Amino acid sequence: AARIDIGATSIDKAGYRHFMAKEIAEQPVVIGDVLNHYVKGDRIVLPDTMDFADVDRISLVGCGTAHLAGHVAKYWFEQLAGLPCDIDVASEFRYREPPLSATSWFISISQSGETADTLAALHYARTQVSRTIGLVNVGTSAIARDSDIALPTLAGIEVSVASSKAFTCQLTVLAILALKAAHDRKRLSDAELARHLDDLRSIPALLQQSLGLSDECQALSEWLAQAQDVLYLGRGALFPVALEGALKLKELSYIHAEGYASGELKHGPIALIDRDVPVVVLAPHDHLFEKTISNMQEVMARHGQILLLSDAKGIEAGGEGTRASLQLPSGGGVFQPILYAVPMQYLAYHTAVAKGTDVDQPRNLAKSVTVE
Amino acid sequence: AARIDIGATSIDKAGYRHFMAKEIAEQPVVIGDVLNHYVKGDRIVLPDTMDFADVDRISLVGCGTAHLAGHVAKYWFEQLAGLPCDIDVASEFRYREPPLSATSWFISISQSGETADTLAALHYARTQVSRTIGLVNVGTSAIARDSDIALPTLAGIEVSVASSKAFTCQLTVLAILALKAAHDRKRLSDAELARHLDDLRSIPALLQQSLGLSDECQALSEWLAQAQDVLYLGRGALFPVALEGALKLKELSYIHAEGYASGELKHGPIALIDRDVPVVVLAPHDHLFEKTISNMQEVMARHGQILLLSDAKGIEAGGEGTRASLQLPSGGGVFQPILYAVPMQYLAYHTAVAKGTDVDQPRNLAKSVTVE
Repeated sequence: AARIDIGATSIDKAGYRHFMAKEIAEQPVVIGDVLNHYVKGDRIVLPDTMDFADVDRISLVGCGTAHLAGHVAKYWFEQLAGLPCDIDVASEFRYREPPLSATSWFISISQSGETADTLAALHYARTQVSRTIGLVNVGTSAIARDSDIALPTLAGIEVSVASSKAFTCQLTVLAILALKAAHDRKRLSDAELARHLDDLRSIPALLQQSLGLSDECQALSEWLAQAQDVLYLGRGALFPVALEGALKLKELSYIHAEGYASGELKHGPIALIDRDVPVVVLAPHDHLFEKTISNMQEVMARHGQILLLSDAKGIEAGGEGTRASLQLPSGGGVFQPILYAVPMQYLAYHTAVAKGTDVDQPRNLAKSVTVE
Repeated sequence: AARIDIGATSIDKAGYRHFMAKEIAEQPVVIGDVLNHYVKGDRIVLPDTMDFADVDRISLVGCGTAHLAGHVAKYWFEQLAGLPCDIDVASEFRYREPPLSATSWFISISQSGETADTLAALHYARTQVSRTIGLVNVGTSAIARDSDIALPTLAGIEVSVASSKAFTCQLTVLAILALKAAHDRKRLSDAELARHLDDLRSIPALLQQSLGLSDECQALSEWLAQAQDVLYLGRGALFPVALEGALKLKELSYIHAEGYASGELKHGPIALIDRDVPVVVLAPHDHLFEKTISNMQEVMARHGQILLLSDAKGIEAGGEGTRASLQLPSGGGVFQPILYAVPMQYLAYHTAVAKGTDVDQPRNLAKSVTVE
């Protein structure tokens, strides 16, 4: 298992007010590090034993934010590689002891690599599956040690209890794995793989644009800080990003935020909507855009106040009647969820600052959960 | 497709203040109807073509409460039959177009049988899998018609927009399917099957005990009605019941309730906990009891106010320091989630009555969602 290289990411605040602000801002650099480590030209560099050709299924397991990184990856593995994935929280997976195929792989995701439930899930899975892979930020951790293959997520030391750069680095490694799987399984030609790798390599520069949204997120935080409740909606791979946005707001600002698949809204949660509940809608202008916008309009018809996150085309097509919008870059291809993670972080961060909560050490939370 | 028999469940309120109160109270009778229909002595009566022996996987799909019935069933299929299951909300499943095994089965769950997203998910799945099964309460519905096999859930007409008896009837049919699968796959002997069927047949009488909790739930509703936020926690097959409890409270009382797997609490949502957030803990005295109680104690250490739902043994072992408890019957074997559904319904119902919301017709909601 490789040791993580903390490199340039020294552990002071480097002029930022909080570690979290610094760690959010580091994302273009550390994601660049991930890409440099795992991609050389048009070739993905992973251990030789990682050939996805004969894998029939992948189980992805984690807790909290790491679980949500796996949830995004499920969409990528299925769509790019046609490889079915199960995603579960570690505490359920370990006691469920699910039947797993002997030709399946298991991927655990953990920043610290010491998360107790995730480690126990790994210990169950390795008796069942043909290969275990640990995505960890701490290369000397128990999960790195006990996995067949440990892949460092290279985020550098993350001090803030609420994860930011560790999440997007997990997403980037998972994106690379999904591309490798798609290529190994002949679902992507060399040329298609190269095109997707170009999309992925465009992410650090596009993230700089996402980082430019900080001031707008700060201005919006005055509105969000007044709210008792906030809903986050997304479809497809943006659905788990909506879940992550809600989790981040909960963790940092103690506002009760909840994420939903946009299409589920009308099956219950829409009863919560009135003009006091901000609704954050993640809707890039893609094949699911019209569906999400239609769900958003149902919210507006009930006087819900919308914050729309989309690209220029999406805001032009769907922005009417919203209270506010944030314009994200339109590039990045299928890896856009990485870009949308940043405003999720900034909205939570600035709202927490506006409320005066302890941003880097939220109440009741620990950075690494080594008990059940 | 069989027509549903509305039988004795006529569509007036029969002396109840709301349809929902009447429909909750009908559950022992309608679940008895389900058992009479699908179980004769020690034999499960299902179409001859329903042999689970060679099925490699099941996909369960629904929306809202029906989705949560499928989520409970995932635990049953996996634990009883060793048959891996995927569960998804229909709006995500249909656009994800997940790779499905050609020897897998697809089960859609819908009270009305007309839910637009669920119907579209079925239309995708039937191009992929070897058999489609529709669990519907309306036998003449589109989902019944378009499924290879339609299984009526026999709840009778449900007028209240928020589902109660339709949910527990779905659970009962799914429990029978899981037992059939376990027997077909030689995971249960004839004698073991008979014992599980005895457990299932004990449910209607045990449900009468659950119904006896109505007055206690009413007394608790004065506390819950003051809350801005409520959390519901459970593990294993009680986790989706916790999700259903939260959904029901949201739908009826407009209080922002959210369900969590108990083990996930410390990965973020515990930041919400203070003395103003009631936490409803579902913890029967089973193999997961100690784990859930330990999570509950973390909540209490942060001054969270607990409502513990357990059996006599569990309340004796874990009730100390809780604000209140509700004692559920200890019988029912692995089918206890059906019993725990009833206090979920009553807590939401009485809280809604205490708040003066429109119980049978909550704002913004429709009974049958025939648009996306």
